[in-house]
This record gives sequence, C-alpha cells and structure tokens, in this order.
Amino acid sequence: MLLLIPGPVRTHPETRAAMAADIAPWDNDFRPVYASVRERVRAVAGGVEGEHATLPLQGCGHFILEAALRTFVPAGAKVLVPTNGAYGTRAARLVREAGRRVVALPGPDTRPVTSAEVASALEHDAEIGHVLMVHHETGSGIVNDPAAIGAAVRAAGRRLIMDSVSAFGALPFSMAEHPECDAVVFTSGKCLEGMPGIGFAVARVDRVLECEGNAGSWSFDLHDVYTHALRSGWGSFRFTPPAQALRAFSVALDLYGREGGQKARLARYTENARVLYDGVLGLGLRPYLERRHQGPVIVTVHQPQHPAFALQRFVDELKARGVLISNFSCTEAPSFRVGCIGAVTPAEMRGAVAAMGEALEAMGVRERVAA
Amino acid sequence: MLLLIPGPVRTHPETRAAMAADIAPWDNDFRPVYASVRERVRAVAGGVEGEHATLPLQGCGHFILEAALRTFVPAGAKVLVPTNGAYGTRAARLVREAGRRVVALPGPDTRPVTSAEVASALEHDAEIGHVLMVHHETGSGIVNDPAAIGAAVRAAGRRLIMDSVSAFGALPFSMAEHPECDAVVFTSGKCLEGMPGIGFAVARVDRVLECEGNAGSWSFDLHDVYTHALRSGWGSFRFTPPAQALRAFSVALDLYGREGGQKARLARYTENARVLYDGVLGLGLRPYLERRHQGPVIVTVHQPQHPAFALQRFVDELKARGVLISNFSCTEAPSFRVGCIGAVTPAEMRGAVAAMGEALEAMGVRERVAA
Repeated sequence: MLLLIPGPVRTHPETRAAMAADIAPWDNDFRPVYASVRERVRAVAGGVEGEHATLPLQGCGHFILEAALRTFVPAGAKVLVPTNGAYGTRAARLVREAGRRVVALPGPDTRPVTSAEVASALEHDAEIGHVLMVHHETGSGIVNDPAAIGAAVRAAGRRLIMDSVSAFGALPFSMAEHPECDAVVFTSGKCLEGMPGIGFAVARVDRVLECEGNAGSWSFDLHDVYTHALRSGWGSFRFTPPAQALRAFSVALDLYGREGGQKARLARYTENARVLYDGVLGLGLRPYLERRHQGPVIVTVHQPQHPAFALQRFVDELKARGVLISNFSCTEAPSFRVGCIGAVTPAEMRGAVAAMGEALEAMGVRERVAA
Repeated sequence: MLLLIPGPVRTHPETRAAMAADIAPWDNDFRPVYASVRERVRAVAGGVEGEHATLPLQGCGHFILEAALRTFVPAGAKVLVPTNGAYGTRAARLVREAGRRVVALPGPDTRPVTSAEVASALEHDAEIGHVLMVHHETGSGIVNDPAAIGAAVRAAGRRLIMDSVSAFGALPFSMAEHPECDAVVFTSGKCLEGMPGIGFAVARVDRVLECEGNAGSWSFDLHDVYTHALRSGWGSFRFTPPAQALRAFSVALDLYGREGGQKARLARYTENARVLYDGVLGLGLRPYLERRHQGPVIVTVHQPQHPAFALQRFVDELKARGVLISNFSCTEAPSFRVGCIGAVTPAEMRGAVAAMGEALEAMGVRERVAA
C-alpha cells in the first residue's frame, strides 16, 4: 500500500523492522542509540553544541508544541499566531487553552503570511512577546517563510517559536541563523520518516535556563526535561519513553544521512509534489494552491464539482488501487489532500496519479480519455 | 534476553511483530481495531457501556495521570496524595506543578497506606475534594488497597483518581464497584503486555461532562478527548496517535483474553513474584518488603552490604547471563528491583534466580554453595 498522508508516513522496511523489539530504555546498550539521535537531530536543526539542546518528549506534535509554548511563554503573556490555515488555527487554540493570550493574525489558507503583516501586528501591540509560527501549513500545503518572518520578529525584538512539525528535515531551518528563535519543534513521523510517538524541540540552552517555573505542568516543562537529562549524566528521558519509536527513528536518521540529508530529501519531495501537481492538472482537476505557493509536503486539490464525487468513495477507489490518502480535508473549501512525504519516489507518484484517473473514471466523475 | 523491569515489559513475539507496519490512523480498516481496543479496555476496568468511556492519550503514564488530574480537579483545588513511595511522591509533584494544592500523606515505602490514615486526613481537611491514589507503588512493590481506600473516600463524600499504571490488568479494580472514582489511568506497556506509547483513562462519563473547562491545557483535556471522539462519529483520536503501539496493544489484548484475563494474569505474576521472593531469600539476600506486603509486580531486594557489590556491576553480570533488570532503584534504602510482569513464566523466574546466584558469585559477594 502506498501511504500518501502527511504523517505518519510510509517508512523504509528497515525503519519499521526496528520497532519489533523489546527494549529497556535505560539500558547501557540503548543509551548510545538515544544519544546519537539527540546529536543528529540537533545537527539537522542547525544547532550548535553547548548552545542548543535536543529535548525529546513522548507523544505527538501538539504535545511538544504545547511544551515549548508553556516553557518559553509565561502564563498570561501575549503570543501572535498567524492563522492562515487549519494548523495555525489549532496552534492558536493550544495557546489560548494553556492560559496565554492569543493575538491571531488571520489570512487565507492559500498564501503564506507576509513579513509585513507580522511586522505590522508587532508594531501595533508592544505586549506581544512571542510569535508562534507554523512552518508548513498541513491544512493546505503552503509554506510560511522562516527567513522573512524570523527577520521581522528579530527586528521587532521579539521571540519566535517555530512549529515545523510537518516540514522539519525537508524544508531548511537553522537555529544558528535564527537567534530570535527559542525552539523549533517537530516529530519523528513526518519528513524524517520515522514512526510516530516522539516529539522533539531543539532549543536555545540559555533560554531554557531562563524559563524555569513557567510551564505550570511537570509533563510539559522543557526546563525540567533539560535539567533532568543533565543530572542523569547521560541525558536520560524522564518517564517511560516509546523506546521502539526511538530505535526506529535512529534507523530513519541513518537513511536520511545516506540519502544526502535535507537537500536530497527536499529535492525528492519537491519532485514528488511536482509530479502530483502536474498530474492532477492533467486529470482536469484544480489544485488548491497556485503553483508559486505550493510546498513540497502535501498537494491539496479541490474536490471535483460533480454529483458523482464523494470523498470517501474516492478514497476507497484509490485504496482498491493500492494508494491510501486522507479521508478528510482541513481547507476552507472542500478538497482532498495527498502527502508527498515519506519513503516514496516520483515514479510511485506517477503511479498514484494514474490511480486517481482510474478512480475518477470508475466513479463516473471523469470520461475515459482516449490514449 | 529476559527483560525483568516494571515496563516496558517483555512482550509476546506476536505483539512485537504488530509494530512493524505503516498505518493510516484514520483509515476505515484501522477504526475497528481501535474501537475494539477501547471496548475491551473498558471491560477490563469494570466499566459499563454508556456510563464509562475509554479515553486514550498519546505518551506515557505521567501524561494520562496529569490529564485526569487537570480534567477532574479544578485549578487551585486540594488533592490528598498518599506518598508512601517514589511514585506517590512523583504524583504529588505532578499535582503541585499543575497548580492544584497537594496535601501529602507520607508513609514508609514498606507498607500500604491505611484507610484509617486516609479517613483521618479527609476528616481534618474539608477542603480536600480528591484523593489521588497510586495502586501499585513501583518504587518498592507494595500495593495500596483500592477497596479500603475507596471506601474511606466514599464515606467522606470525596472523589478518587486511581493511578493504576503499573497494576492495571493484573490487580483487580472495577469502576462499577467504585462510584467515587472519576477515572482509573494506566498504560499500554505494563501488565497488559503491550508496547509503550499510549495511556488510557477509563472514566465516568457524567464526571467528564461536568468537567469542561478545568484542564487549562488542550493536550491534557479529557473532556475534549471525549467530545472529539463523539463528534467524529467513530471515536477518533485527536492528533496523530502512535498507531503501531495501538495495533500491538490490540494483539496484546487478544493474548490477555486467551490467557484467561485478569485472574489468570494475576496468578502467573503472583507465582513469578513468589519464585523470586523465595529465590532471593535462598540466596541469602533480604527482600525489601515483608512477605505480607509484597505485591506481584516487582520484587525489590536490599543491596547486599558487601564491599564487592555495585549495582551496575550486578546488572552487567546478570545481563551477561541473559537477564536484564533496572540499573537504578527508587526506594528509601539502596535496593535492586526485579520485574515480575510481562510475557515471563515462573520457570524463567527460577532461571533468573539462578543467574543472580551466579552473578553474586562472579562478583565475589557470595561464596559458591555446594550442591
């Protein structure tokens, strides 16, 4: 089955196989595996030894994002959140329910937020201390630009939290180039092609140390994650980690290095997305985004306005042809979304496009095109 | 390798094998797997359809415990926590850092808390609304008695939250018999012999509905977990679940049923613990607990007061003989702890005892005993 969803992604067989093991997380044989994961992840994030630390947390992307938010933003403080998509809107809810004040910066889910919009919002509200930015908007597929937004945040003397859950490892981002950024957060099961189960923050150590006592939650306190790891002498996890997912993630990072790292991964995903974008155009469908705003992680497509089209039926027809996509959409207008990430090649994406054509024909949505 | 730690436990090969798969968590083929997990877990908890709901949460035991605490106890309210062991003490910290007020009820880590102690604490402080009780104390191996403590809580008209992380599925507990209990919490990777990665609360639906707005955290709001699942029409997880761990847990529940459920599992673990307890006595070692307080989940043993004994060396010698135990202890006096749970038989426990004898001999801690 070709899994084309924005995570958990299709993984390499070696990565999956690493899950089928019993592991004592604190065993001396497992410690180097875990230490190497932390170091390699910091390197992918452009972190510098001694200045940046990898802080892992059990669970999903929302959990590590809430942990970063609670740690770096004191209760009651104000956070600007660009909400140009479903995941930006979710991030705003996460901030609000954690007892921080949200200033939403709404925008259409069809284009990135601009640095001018961010700069203007910051200029008009001196109380805003942080910007929480979604790097890749998994609702529609647009990419918000860290270079542009980061510069605006830096110029205004504010701090940045970067939610790069669905982009990290493919879209470039470097903590060393973003001194305004307290932390970038991401998970094991997206562009780094591991299995789901662990989130990570790569964070500025100086900021972590300044933020003791902010979190209002032991579970979500990244200051405690950091100091506990230091105290243990070997970087110990607090509480039981999903050790199998960590072990698989270590294999996934091996494969990432072997492929050529961020540049090579971005190139493959970009080509996957191009094949898909051109392919759906060729099928007479309408991509949700203009080509200039189309990112490499998911391609979202308007649902055909045809009485025979129904999303679940389309998903079922595709699945019968070996391609599995999401059976829900997160865009303002009805769409279907197709992931371009995971252990998937452009040739397989061409196969997926062919399967879409067949599925639409089987549903009676599209006439058979003579060859 | 015979893994003898109190979780993640040694699993059955079928359970482990179920991890090595890519899964779309919202796919129609996965929904029945997930629905069946929820139903079977509710049944193990003595829950009643319509009255009790299974509420899963990504992550570890601390996370689901914090979620239950935040959901059922309003911010600033007072919680009594018996702290007769390391995990009780941790629970108290969890409560305090979540902004609830803790009344600790300290006790030695060598005996259960009594109902008289709890009743007296409740009588002396009318502000205490909840008791947070650790069922099995993973620090030492004692069992706090839900029947006795629950009765005291009920008689005082207060509410109970039951942390049964290291006991659930082996030690009996029934929500139907404990109307004073808002929720029992536990995880996938302990006595139910799944893989780590998911926590569960089985909770009273009426109390969940009363507790909207308490949590102060979207991630940890069990009211939202419940209402989101209802809204989806099929019980959907919020956010990406560790789908592999869920799939493996479904297999683990099959095996649990095949073994004979709670009674059979408790019988096997009890025999494992007995073999170990008698075995270490036979080696001239001193168990940490009196036999009458010894639970079936872990056996903790005083470290030999011998200059040649060092815990890591002992762990290494055991590991060289195919037995892996924890390389740290959580008791007031130095100890080593040996798990009795997981896919482990009494015959294997006898082998583990023999390995301990050999390890102590190799270290020069114990003279070779003539056969």
